[in-house]
Amino acid sequence: MSSYQAPISDMTFNLFDVWQLDQYWQTNAQLQDLIEGDTAKAILEEAAKICEQQIAPFAGEADQRGAQLTNGVVSLPAHYHTAYQSLVEGGWTGLSGDPEYGGMGMPKALSMMVDEMLCSADIAFSLYPGLTAGACVALLQHADDATKQTYLPKLYSGEWSGTMCLTESHAGSDLGIMRTMAKPNDDGSYAINGSKIFITAGEHELTANIIHLVLAKLPDAPAGSRGISLFLVPKYLLNETSEPGERNAVTVGSIEHKMGINGSATCVLNFDDAKGYLIGEPHRGLSCMFTMMNYERLSMGSQGLGAAERAYQNALAYAKERLQGRTTSQDPNKADAIIGHPDVQRMLLNIKAMNEAGRTFATWVAALLDKSKYDNCTISGQRANLLTPITKAFMTDQGLDACVTAQQIFGGHGYIKEWGMEQLVRDVRIAQIYEGTNGIQAADFMLRKVAADEGTVLLSLLDDITDELATRPLIEAAPLTNAITDLRQLTAQLLTKDNTTLAGAACDYLALVSYVLYGYMWYKNLLALDDSKHSRNFIAAKTHTASWYFKRILPRAAGIKAILSNDAASLYTLAPEHF
Amino acid sequence: MSSYQAPISDMTFNLFDVWQLDQYWQTNAQLQDLIEGDTAKAILEEAAKICEQQIAPFAGEADQRGAQLTNGVVSLPAHYHTAYQSLVEGGWTGLSGDPEYGGMGMPKALSMMVDEMLCSADIAFSLYPGLTAGACVALLQHADDATKQTYLPKLYSGEWSGTMCLTESHAGSDLGIMRTMAKPNDDGSYAINGSKIFITAGEHELTANIIHLVLAKLPDAPAGSRGISLFLVPKYLLNETSEPGERNAVTVGSIEHKMGINGSATCVLNFDDAKGYLIGEPHRGLSCMFTMMNYERLSMGSQGLGAAERAYQNALAYAKERLQGRTTSQDPNKADAIIGHPDVQRMLLNIKAMNEAGRTFATWVAALLDKSKYDNCTISGQRANLLTPITKAFMTDQGLDACVTAQQIFGGHGYIKEWGMEQLVRDVRIAQIYEGTNGIQAADFMLRKVAADEGTVLLSLLDDITDELATRPLIEAAPLTNAITDLRQLTAQLLTKDNTTLAGAACDYLALVSYVLYGYMWYKNLLALDDSKHSRNFIAAKTHTASWYFKRILPRAAGIKAILSNDAASLYTLAPEHF
Repeated sequence: MSSYQAPISDMTFNLFDVWQLDQYWQTNAQLQDLIEGDTAKAILEEAAKICEQQIAPFAGEADQRGAQLTNGVVSLPAHYHTAYQSLVEGGWTGLSGDPEYGGMGMPKALSMMVDEMLCSADIAFSLYPGLTAGACVALLQHADDATKQTYLPKLYSGEWSGTMCLTESHAGSDLGIMRTMAKPNDDGSYAINGSKIFITAGEHELTANIIHLVLAKLPDAPAGSRGISLFLVPKYLLNETSEPGERNAVTVGSIEHKMGINGSATCVLNFDDAKGYLIGEPHRGLSCMFTMMNYERLSMGSQGLGAAERAYQNALAYAKERLQGRTTSQDPNKADAIIGHPDVQRMLLNIKAMNEAGRTFATWVAALLDKSKYDNCTISGQRANLLTPITKAFMTDQGLDACVTAQQIFGGHGYIKEWGMEQLVRDVRIAQIYEGTNGIQAADFMLRKVAADEGTVLLSLLDDITDELATRPLIEAAPLTNAITDLRQLTAQLLTKDNTTLAGAACDYLALVSYVLYGYMWYKNLLALDDSKHSRNFIAAKTHTASWYFKRILPRAAGIKAILSNDAASLYTLAPEHF
Repeated sequence: MSSYQAPISDMTFNLFDVWQLDQYWQTNAQLQDLIEGDTAKAILEEAAKICEQQIAPFAGEADQRGAQLTNGVVSLPAHYHTAYQSLVEGGWTGLSGDPEYGGMGMPKALSMMVDEMLCSADIAFSLYPGLTAGACVALLQHADDATKQTYLPKLYSGEWSGTMCLTESHAGSDLGIMRTMAKPNDDGSYAINGSKIFITAGEHELTANIIHLVLAKLPDAPAGSRGISLFLVPKYLLNETSEPGERNAVTVGSIEHKMGINGSATCVLNFDDAKGYLIGEPHRGLSCMFTMMNYERLSMGSQGLGAAERAYQNALAYAKERLQGRTTSQDPNKADAIIGHPDVQRMLLNIKAMNEAGRTFATWVAALLDKSKYDNCTISGQRANLLTPITKAFMTDQGLDACVTAQQIFGGHGYIKEWGMEQLVRDVRIAQIYEGTNGIQAADFMLRKVAADEGTVLLSLLDDITDELATRPLIEAAPLTNAITDLRQLTAQLLTKDNTTLAGAACDYLALVSYVLYGYMWYKNLLALDDSKHSRNFIAAKTHTASWYFKRILPRAAGIKAILSNDAASLYTLAPEHF
């Protein structure tokens, strides 16, 4: 099985040097008592221990055994229970939770790094605490205070866990056509009837209760997506002392056999007059759920990055050890380590450059979310909103790419299960699909986040970056200035086009913007380097990898621009029979 | 499980209309009695029946069960035996074999299409006849006549099968450092001792005997790759009547658990004083084996294309059936087929455009091989040689890309085993790795096929294409002319660089040349369209897909050119401790 060591020095570099969040935390009234630099570092180190020692070494076993369904009961790999208990005992399940309800109140920029570690350790395992955290965000924002008092402390403590139940077999991303119904009961609760599929962590015995957040339609619901409401449906109904009592009518029909994340129980859940409680306003369930979805979308980025980081570490170690071919040796019977081959360096640098830019990017987006939340900063909120689909789509696309490339460095051994590289490929693949496919993310980005406001938020961001580049120019980052100019030009051109053209261009456009912004991330990495703080090796690696990015990766933007510059309106109209 | 229907109309379009091989066959003395257009079409139709009915429907079962090792005996999925018998009974295992030894003597351009079908049906299954065909090529070219008389008829008939035994655990692609030894016996045979890994079809009971072609070193061998010899090592030694008799000392140590191609028995083979026979000259084994490797490398292209074709067919069918979102419908409760979404059209067209160009490309390379073989045409041989690494590397890279994209079109269902899409991803992934990783192919292309002759063969090919474009210009293909100009310019620039830069540029350069040549393939497709022969739908689809290629795919070349135009010599020198 592949090994894993949390990249704490790059994490603290991002937190403290690139984005100087320790300084920001001190300026904020809510955060200043909760967190400062040393605490943050200690938190990362403690999280690393659990991930490195209790989860990562057993990810291969979890993959092989998987979640199993027997007589309606889902059993998980045994070490999932002990590792989960460690999370509970350390308070990790409430890391980003609201302190008013027992959470630790840590900023997203920090909790996201713990997410990354959990994903490196085992994406399948990470989903159990991950879904709970998402459910808490939705409840915190949309539930009434009594509900929050009842459920949030138990969810933050990890005693209970959460799910999100959206998908039905005929309705994937098209929630408007869902069929699950909610009929009012006399006591103010609702009787939920229907069947949901692909429910992550839908059934298991890690926790004493599971709180399902379920989308369903009320009898008087308007048609389509404006007629969906959100319901809280506990696996065990609470008794008078708010402890799990009677079993609710939610049962698991089956669990899916998947390409990967086998330790995650992906359930078909049947609701047969299950008792549920309305959360938020009737018919406003979709916007409630989007609160949770947006949170999850950021976590998806951590899945891409987490798998890519682990893939990189193992490919690097292998490249240093594996002797094949001659680079410096002259002896035909002696081989050199493959890291000496330019093509292996190319693969490693491609992964490294994208991973480190990805980590800086994720920290940036999380910090924007924090500033939006703690300082009510409008522009930070708008930018986080703009960048969310990139975090989800681009970071997971890069995650697959990194894992495939790292697997390639292993040659034939990369294809064999025992090395663990192929599992990373299988596991990370799902992140491009769930929580809204990357195509849906791209459409959201192009149409809603860029075209809908005529590019205002994006262009103001590009203005600020341009100003920063002018104020603190770095010769290495010169290609970034040109790339931004090209991006502006193309954006202006695209904004004159019809929606079909935009929808067809969306995936490429999202990638183009991402490459430019990753260039900005490398610029920020370079800016943050400091002889007095960082080791020579650290500075050499960062400087070299930045050059690699600007010379060997950023030019990909030119190809995408060339694609999108061609007029293509007529190309998305091929009749089905002509395919 | 995913379905499959052989794309016979596109195959015959390539054979007869694009490359007019039926006309070529009639001009060749050896081929004119063996094959003509109608026979070729009938052969494709018969092969399609076996692949569609006996292999493809059960690929999922084969994946789930896999090859199993019990007490030294490898058992395969039961239907592998019946399907293999069908191949034997129809003479398919000798399709491309030399008629002098009982083969059917079919040209490569035709047999390659049967390979594609077998790979669409089940890559793992295809390896059993595939390895045999490769072993036959090596024997035909390097063995003495007595050996050929003894072994080839049994291999062509499928009674026996073949393997190639190269890899050792410490020596993957670096064959020079292998340790397997061959000591001369008194009777002129050799005692082989050593252990080989990753031996495809190394042990099974599909056939009455298995003929291993094994690389090993003679006691007096020079160091490195110039000291390797080739040996024929049968699983059962032949008795006086040339029938399998005594069991030879070749045993299977274990079989690998892999990401995919689970039906393929990937064996560790131990040779303990196994009796072997020298094939070809002492110490010349590597060049003998390369005969086989080159043959296999072309078959790798078929694996990429075969999986991609099946992935496309299923994604297309799904996109026509799956109702999600509204494209033409106004009713919020009614969804339209997802094929109406521009982003889904984009994904389908990307796959389709690459697959069809890939088929034209594979047919071209096969026809060049045929012209080299049957007409001793030097320039055809040189060009086949030039294009072989592209067939192996680019076609398999595109194979993975196509399967991942097709899986994406299925959304969550693409990740679930029962739909069969994830298996295609897992199965096709190996083709980028084995028979020399795609990185090694790229190095071979850049350094040996292009730089070593200062680009002569490539540039003469580009000259001919440029002439053809000038003689028969097509307005749609105008971007191809520019792409060729850019490629020439970049090639001239690269040819001035040192080997480190070239090795580092190799993968990107291979992709760049491939995109340009695939543009030429689409030009050839367009040229071959004929109102009097082809249906309106066929012409509409080809014309539209060609436009897609020139506007939406070929521009990727601009991005690669931008990457390779940057000076990068200093970038491949990062010390291991700086990674």
